[in-house]
Amino acid sequence: MKIAIVGVSGAVGQELLKILDQRNFPLTDLVLFGSKRSAGNTYNFKGKKYTVKELQHNDDFKGVDIALVSAGGSTSIEFANTITKHGAIMIDNSSAFRMEDDVPLVVPEVNAKDALNAPRNIIANPNCTTIQMVVSLKPIENLSHIKRVHVSTYQSASGAGASAMKELLQQIKDVALEKNEIQAEKFAYQLALNLIPHIDSFTENGYTKEEMKMFNETRKIMHSDIKVSASCVRVPVMRAHSENIWVETEDELSVAQIRQAFENFNGIIVEDNPADKKYPMPLFLSGKNEVFVGRIRKDLTNPKGITFWSVSDQIRKGAALNAIQIAEYLLKNK
Amino acid sequence: MKIAIVGVSGAVGQELLKILDQRNFPLTDLVLFGSKRSAGNTYNFKGKKYTVKELQHNDDFKGVDIALVSAGGSTSIEFANTITKHGAIMIDNSSAFRMEDDVPLVVPEVNAKDALNAPRNIIANPNCTTIQMVVSLKPIENLSHIKRVHVSTYQSASGAGASAMKELLQQIKDVALEKNEIQAEKFAYQLALNLIPHIDSFTENGYTKEEMKMFNETRKIMHSDIKVSASCVRVPVMRAHSENIWVETEDELSVAQIRQAFENFNGIIVEDNPADKKYPMPLFLSGKNEVFVGRIRKDLTNPKGITFWSVSDQIRKGAALNAIQIAEYLLKNK
Repeated sequence: MKIAIVGVSGAVGQELLKILDQRNFPLTDLVLFGSKRSAGNTYNFKGKKYTVKELQHNDDFKGVDIALVSAGGSTSIEFANTITKHGAIMIDNSSAFRMEDDVPLVVPEVNAKDALNAPRNIIANPNCTTIQMVVSLKPIENLSHIKRVHVSTYQSASGAGASAMKELLQQIKDVALEKNEIQAEKFAYQLALNLIPHIDSFTENGYTKEEMKMFNETRKIMHSDIKVSASCVRVPVMRAHSENIWVETEDELSVAQIRQAFENFNGIIVEDNPADKKYPMPLFLSGKNEVFVGRIRKDLTNPKGITFWSVSDQIRKGAALNAIQIAEYLLKNK
Repeated sequence: MKIAIVGVSGAVGQELLKILDQRNFPLTDLVLFGSKRSAGNTYNFKGKKYTVKELQHNDDFKGVDIALVSAGGSTSIEFANTITKHGAIMIDNSSAFRMEDDVPLVVPEVNAKDALNAPRNIIANPNCTTIQMVVSLKPIENLSHIKRVHVSTYQSASGAGASAMKELLQQIKDVALEKNEIQAEKFAYQLALNLIPHIDSFTENGYTKEEMKMFNETRKIMHSDIKVSASCVRVPVMRAHSENIWVETEDELSVAQIRQAFENFNGIIVEDNPADKKYPMPLFLSGKNEVFVGRIRKDLTNPKGITFWSVSDQIRKGAALNAIQIAEYLLKNK
């Protein structure tokens, strides 16, 4: 099993390397690709040194089984053919192909089998906020069909990449030093001590693309007519995303039923003991693999409604881990 | 008009002083009260020095017309009789009396007239998150009855008092210095670079008291059967609260109708021009009086639903300003 990582120097690329190592992914060879700028960089993997190659239109992907690609949408579009033409499966972290009919969009806990039908040799990894949400929706859908969802996100800096995390940390330092001028480049405004209700660009209906991803991707992954109204907000947190979710199901479900469904679901950890101040918090869940849920309770406006709070590491389950779980599934089932 | 401020050394107390000054409140005399610890402190008001008296069970409130009280629920309960027995009207910022039948709960933009019927001489100031929300709900209710609301809050440190704001700033400094041990006393956990989905204590239905205030106080203020499901989260922001709100009305309303209703409503400023990156943000709205709304759009799950984002200074409209607006209304209408 020869694996390629494209965009290895980015936040997700680095996490891909780390997770392949931690999970002892059964690879026989590894090739690393990056932009002209990061070509020549070296990374260690299981005691061996690997040098980053520049991604170019050539035959470098001959013999590659799976390419884990996280280098932005335009790179994915430009290089999809180069990557897949000799038979490699491209697991793409960008939004470029997600909504195309002949590209499966996969969260293994929810719709793993879809990964087996990839006529273009491309499998898309969903958006981070969607991955985290559908993992928590699936055990509920298994009990009763979900009609609609309201979700308010609290998204960390990591969603905007490694340089955005650096920018937030620099802003924190500048705030601590009481500097008058706080630099903001990756974000439209200062994020430290602030909230920015704007992630990705705006669409015509007043929602951002990020919010519409939660609507459209959720329907595709769940093969469902579910409706989602999302409000996405960037918060001064480093790398785990949080979500307040309200779900309306066809039948009335109890909190106990939902809790049990969460507890029995692979990929979810329930942290829900208010008396003991136990609930998921992003600071303490960075680097974890699971989706953590807590604060499970009835929707006070609707007997068929339930609400809960969810936290998950954006770089792990929201990106790199999900891609590797897809690769693991292919390995077992192809 | 003789005014007393009780709890003048706290975050809200200090803001009360500042707002009385800025609005040229027509007072003829001012008396300041505090705990034993803050007694003896002095504050300047319009060029004159005032010394804080210790709040005691005596006749110090004789001659006082209005007492603005912000010293916590137990102090309000203990001293309500002392404060009101000679005829002073107590405008109380604590939650102690809010839900009592013979105590009006007032947000002047919504139910000012209720302030005129205060048989116990006590008028309660609602909770900060509720004040901010009902100001934005009232113009919608004027168009069509609101059946239910889902609200996700992003609450700043100021809601926990001046010492909590200091704690957050200290944590920011400690994070900047990469200290291993970050102190947390006012909050249950580190707030810097974190989110805490827990404000006030938990109740039996899994909601916190803070969340149930948004349910119960909203119904009382709006004289309505409106149902509210709230999820309250503390965020590392200094002093303005933000809210993602979904509203379901009896009739279908357009975004244009809602926007116009907001624009015409006293106390609301619309900041809603996504193309120009205009939306309310807490960092830039500290110290402002109004409730700022933006991101107005349809609820994608419901033709009779609308959603928007709101930001307001928690110490101002969420506490001190609202109390003084009640006092101003009494002055004009008594």
